[in-house]
Amino acid sequence: MTPTQMQRIVLAARPTGRPDHSHFRLETAPIPTPGEGQLLLKTLYLSLDPYMRGRMSAAKSYSAPVEIGQVMEGGTVSEVLESRYPGLNPGDVVLSFSGWQSHALADGAQLRKLDPQAAPVTTALGVLGMPGFTAYAGLLTIGQPKPGETVVVAAASGPVGSAVGQIARIKGARAVGIAGGPEKCAYIRENFGFDAVIDHRAPDLAEQLAAACPDGIDVYFENVGGKVWDAVFPLLNGFARIPVCGLIAQYNASGDFEGPDRLPVLMRQVLTKSLLIRGFIQREFAAQRPDFEREMAGWIASGAVRYKEDIVTGLENAPEAFMGLLEGRNFGKLVVKL
Amino acid sequence: MTPTQMQRIVLAARPTGRPDHSHFRLETAPIPTPGEGQLLLKTLYLSLDPYMRGRMSAAKSYSAPVEIGQVMEGGTVSEVLESRYPGLNPGDVVLSFSGWQSHALADGAQLRKLDPQAAPVTTALGVLGMPGFTAYAGLLTIGQPKPGETVVVAAASGPVGSAVGQIARIKGARAVGIAGGPEKCAYIRENFGFDAVIDHRAPDLAEQLAAACPDGIDVYFENVGGKVWDAVFPLLNGFARIPVCGLIAQYNASGDFEGPDRLPVLMRQVLTKSLLIRGFIQREFAAQRPDFEREMAGWIASGAVRYKEDIVTGLENAPEAFMGLLEGRNFGKLVVKL
Repeated sequence: MTPTQMQRIVLAARPTGRPDHSHFRLETAPIPTPGEGQLLLKTLYLSLDPYMRGRMSAAKSYSAPVEIGQVMEGGTVSEVLESRYPGLNPGDVVLSFSGWQSHALADGAQLRKLDPQAAPVTTALGVLGMPGFTAYAGLLTIGQPKPGETVVVAAASGPVGSAVGQIARIKGARAVGIAGGPEKCAYIRENFGFDAVIDHRAPDLAEQLAAACPDGIDVYFENVGGKVWDAVFPLLNGFARIPVCGLIAQYNASGDFEGPDRLPVLMRQVLTKSLLIRGFIQREFAAQRPDFEREMAGWIASGAVRYKEDIVTGLENAPEAFMGLLEGRNFGKLVVKL
Repeated sequence: MTPTQMQRIVLAARPTGRPDHSHFRLETAPIPTPGEGQLLLKTLYLSLDPYMRGRMSAAKSYSAPVEIGQVMEGGTVSEVLESRYPGLNPGDVVLSFSGWQSHALADGAQLRKLDPQAAPVTTALGVLGMPGFTAYAGLLTIGQPKPGETVVVAAASGPVGSAVGQIARIKGARAVGIAGGPEKCAYIRENFGFDAVIDHRAPDLAEQLAAACPDGIDVYFENVGGKVWDAVFPLLNGFARIPVCGLIAQYNASGDFEGPDRLPVLMRQVLTKSLLIRGFIQREFAAQRPDFEREMAGWIASGAVRYKEDIVTGLENAPEAFMGLLEGRNFGKLVVKL
């Protein structure tokens, strides 16, 4: 019998600090019927990404917040169940933005058909998707690593950080990765070929980073903020470039930050070292997407870029997995298999 | 009778905050004799610029500090008294970097001959020199103002700020200037053609700036820091560009800055607004210098760019004038006439 009910997770309340289960609510609802030009999709995989923490807050950001009672947003790999859109048929697998729910309607024009033979479909949410493109566009367009330069990236076992380090090495730079805990560090060292890997839990993080960067840091790909930034900052070379795509360490912060005020110190270094700091969202570089897809597919095929996924089963486990993501408990690209 | 003694001002001690007379010492010394390839120069005009405050500190910056007992550095317009360098003759006027002294030796290759018929020679220290080029290169290369965008600059009666605003208008942008006191503001409004001018001493600076920038700020040319930055920061638009060439408001600061810590707030805005912050020193753009000289000379000739000089007489008055510069007491490009 065809199911008539779907599951979805909505934003129940806005967290002011760390999200917990009270901020999410699992609901059931009738499965909707597609209109003209629409499709009914069944979610196969849901991507969980740090940016979603921003959507839970009312504060203005680069995208509108999720409203209370709305389904949490997110990229998905979905299967077409019904199609009223020419060119996509039941059984096709597509990249969608269906959010945290088991079923969804979609406009056909918003979907991209995936070829399950070309690559595992989950890679469309990771190394071949938004996180991989974030690494590619931010590193190459803003960071512009040159041969022999030193590139530092944190969350180096994650989908963005692991790609940043590997692309940096393809471009002839040294890659220094930072991650949490010995298991992740060992994995990065063995699988992603970074030149050095440092555990950010080490009490002597700053000293270890300095030792790993004897020629200073030319590119710091900023995706975490917090104490990693503190360790990186004194090591920045003249003309260093700092693409900023995330600040996960401060996403749960609320209220004022304790002094002293480090803004004037930052600006002084910006001035005296001719630093470049540039925030970005991958979609501004959409024109580079075809180059990315061609190059990254080639690098994966040749083994020059490897990736790791962390797959959690069951939509109902998405909130817990997401809370873990914000604390670095995931190990690789976090995906929920429905 | 030809004088045999020269005057010079040396760094007597390093200030930790605001410089005062105890940090400078006026000395006399024998006028030196040029060696092969050298020239003996007499200083006609000495440029005083905010960057000199940095040279008085031991802290690492983009240039080495002046050592205690050394002559204070600075650009000069000088007259050749004796020449052992082919192509430059007694009576020629040159752009030099002779520092705070009445006479100096120079290597001929380091000098640029000026044509007193083409433009007043003092402009080689201002609108046609380093400050003008700082405005030109920073605004056009980093700021990249587009027609209809809003460009904000402080110290708008000074040589950098006044050029930034006028070049912004040449490029079709709106120019909003900030300066200290009603006299300067009126002058800027009447002579430099800014679209709006705001007195930073106004208690409602933030409100006035917001009113003057109804469409937000697309380019903030940062040359002061401090409270102007505070007023600008909330008004920055997405993809705003912030060339940073100076932070005069904090040059005299020492020790920690009082909290809260605004660094995380800055980085959040960098991320969510895709801001670009880029420190620079004009010399990195040296390749653009010929374009600058041609374009700026044309703009001055056509009246599209105007400038104001503040000329103080007597080397012995340089320290007092420099202290005034750091407090905004100058009115236009500050030059000492010897």
